[in-house]
Amino acid sequence: MTKLLFTPGPLTTSATVKQAMLRDLGSRDREFLEIVGEIRRALLHLGGAGPPDYECVLMQGSGTFAIESVISSAIPRGGKLLVLVNGAYGRRIAQIARVHAIPVEVIETPENQRIHARDVAAGQGVTHVAVVHCETTTGILNPIEEIGERVAASGAFYIVDAMSSFGAIPVDLARARIDFLISSANKCIEGVPGFGFVLARRAALDSSQGQARTLSLDLHAQWTGLERDGQFRFTPPTHVLLAFHQALRELEEEGGVAARARRYARNHARLTRGMRDLGFEAYLAGADQSYIITSFRYPADPSFRFAQFYSQLSDLGFVIYPGKLSTEPCFRIGTIGRITEADIERLLAAIGQVMAALRRVESAV
Amino acid sequence: MTKLLFTPGPLTTSATVKQAMLRDLGSRDREFLEIVGEIRRALLHLGGAGPPDYECVLMQGSGTFAIESVISSAIPRGGKLLVLVNGAYGRRIAQIARVHAIPVEVIETPENQRIHARDVAAGQGVTHVAVVHCETTTGILNPIEEIGERVAASGAFYIVDAMSSFGAIPVDLARARIDFLISSANKCIEGVPGFGFVLARRAALDSSQGQARTLSLDLHAQWTGLERDGQFRFTPPTHVLLAFHQALRELEEEGGVAARARRYARNHARLTRGMRDLGFEAYLAGADQSYIITSFRYPADPSFRFAQFYSQLSDLGFVIYPGKLSTEPCFRIGTIGRITEADIERLLAAIGQVMAALRRVESAV
Repeated sequence: MTKLLFTPGPLTTSATVKQAMLRDLGSRDREFLEIVGEIRRALLHLGGAGPPDYECVLMQGSGTFAIESVISSAIPRGGKLLVLVNGAYGRRIAQIARVHAIPVEVIETPENQRIHARDVAAGQGVTHVAVVHCETTTGILNPIEEIGERVAASGAFYIVDAMSSFGAIPVDLARARIDFLISSANKCIEGVPGFGFVLARRAALDSSQGQARTLSLDLHAQWTGLERDGQFRFTPPTHVLLAFHQALRELEEEGGVAARARRYARNHARLTRGMRDLGFEAYLAGADQSYIITSFRYPADPSFRFAQFYSQLSDLGFVIYPGKLSTEPCFRIGTIGRITEADIERLLAAIGQVMAALRRVESAV
Repeated sequence: MTKLLFTPGPLTTSATVKQAMLRDLGSRDREFLEIVGEIRRALLHLGGAGPPDYECVLMQGSGTFAIESVISSAIPRGGKLLVLVNGAYGRRIAQIARVHAIPVEVIETPENQRIHARDVAAGQGVTHVAVVHCETTTGILNPIEEIGERVAASGAFYIVDAMSSFGAIPVDLARARIDFLISSANKCIEGVPGFGFVLARRAALDSSQGQARTLSLDLHAQWTGLERDGQFRFTPPTHVLLAFHQALRELEEEGGVAARARRYARNHARLTRGMRDLGFEAYLAGADQSYIITSFRYPADPSFRFAQFYSQLSDLGFVIYPGKLSTEPCFRIGTIGRITEADIERLLAAIGQVMAALRRVESAV
């Protein structure tokens, strides 16, 4: 059974994106290298940027690998990272810094509140500031432009984890004063998982030379390799890159980031309306909520069992996502990927059906 | 044009392996987790091992990421690595250790000679010994069992890079006294690139807890995650894993490692005979040469240009591989992947055709 994925990724992708993987290309093949070059240019274009101001580095692995690549390459010995946190993915950035013995300061905002740009001022001796754009923990959207203005004024480098937002929420790298933006293949560009990417201000990238604490995740060396001969230093996921190339083409055909944003926003509006009608309460206030992923509180009924709810929905062909909040029992529903309002309506019908069945079991006991 | 790949990977894979990627599975989906479990068990089975003695850890990224995962997780502070080197991939292991400030001793053997097991004795204060099974630099096969016996006698841990050999050259993990064997998806098991894997002796894996120098490449944490709930800690390349699952099934259908070894050996025998007939000289003595990949010296004719040779062959649909020797101008031809003797014969005909054309151009000048 083909299930629809209402998750933060891997997502439902188009048939044509998957079909692009039906051939084997050599990792040094001219056609493959041209595809890699086109991907790198298209990603920069999505961020309203390009050489010589900004450069694009692709990194094998999941998005976390790309984040670790930036944290472990960009921050020099003697540097200090400030992480503005309002969810699990912000905490993960701080964790990466600690593993590499990089001094790190964390300013925590409650998970149901946006980060305030004024928090940037709280860091002492900070050389790099990191924040998550759309915190997948809740779906909250942080004000990366306001934060960027403060970071730029402080003279620090600015790192934005745009994993769940890039491609569907417009971002202008230069205007947001971003030095390193990180995202991955299997999010809003609707590719399949296997690599992440970093859009980096050229000067910031240059300054990371020789600072990496690993071989595989050396951001500057990876960039140098791609620039030298168009090749990855180590075997790239060739098929995943072919799929991503097709996904970028389909993003363009849809009408670019603005059009994708509209589709996702419609998905999200339909979802929240339908869930409210079914008696579910969204965790976040509407104004803070992105159209990427939405957290819903468990129903008040104490007999609600998420595992049952999840698996019965899955049996009907709809995959949702568990919660990740540190304090409240929630589950999450993503509205990204190759899905439309009609799919959301089918999901809502299935949720209604499963809730009714769970209630019948309960009343029969 | 669909080209045939005569490279060390990414390789030509079967149509059915690629078709297995035509669906999107959630990374926490029950069916996906069962597939991951089956992959882990099947890989151990190929090494003649299984729990509780040996465990399998899958790691996102290229094979080098999996190697770095082992080197940066298994060797404790105060440990010392001895790398027995006769090619670029052995040198890369030493480079990884240096990046992590792990004390490392290197014993170099010329690239055209097998490593001698007695070299193990040369290391002082060594806690871990690493060697490459089939050095892709040349195609030479190192005697991992004899080396393993010496390593075991010394009391050190034994790390084997079996990137290009695992799945096509029989290996018994316990008999070779291996603590960590590393390979990747896009080699002799004939999957597509996107992850590597580590087969680890349970006791050695246990001892690596808390030693990792990175978050993403933490071998013990990755294993703990897979054991706890069957899930990867960070997004796995779901489609690549589906392809690999199918590739393992096809390896079994072919008759397992022994049958695959026979097919590759036939490919290699046909290649070396045909290349000799065309006037090419193999770099290695026959007894040291594996059936995985073969290095050939450039022809004596000083007008030979590898770039022309490569691109004309590529235009005809045959992708070969450049050399990587530190001293001699060679190129390489792989005999692994979903290719047969008939494909080798087509390649040989194309090489004959290209060489004749190059000679005609030369004599016309």
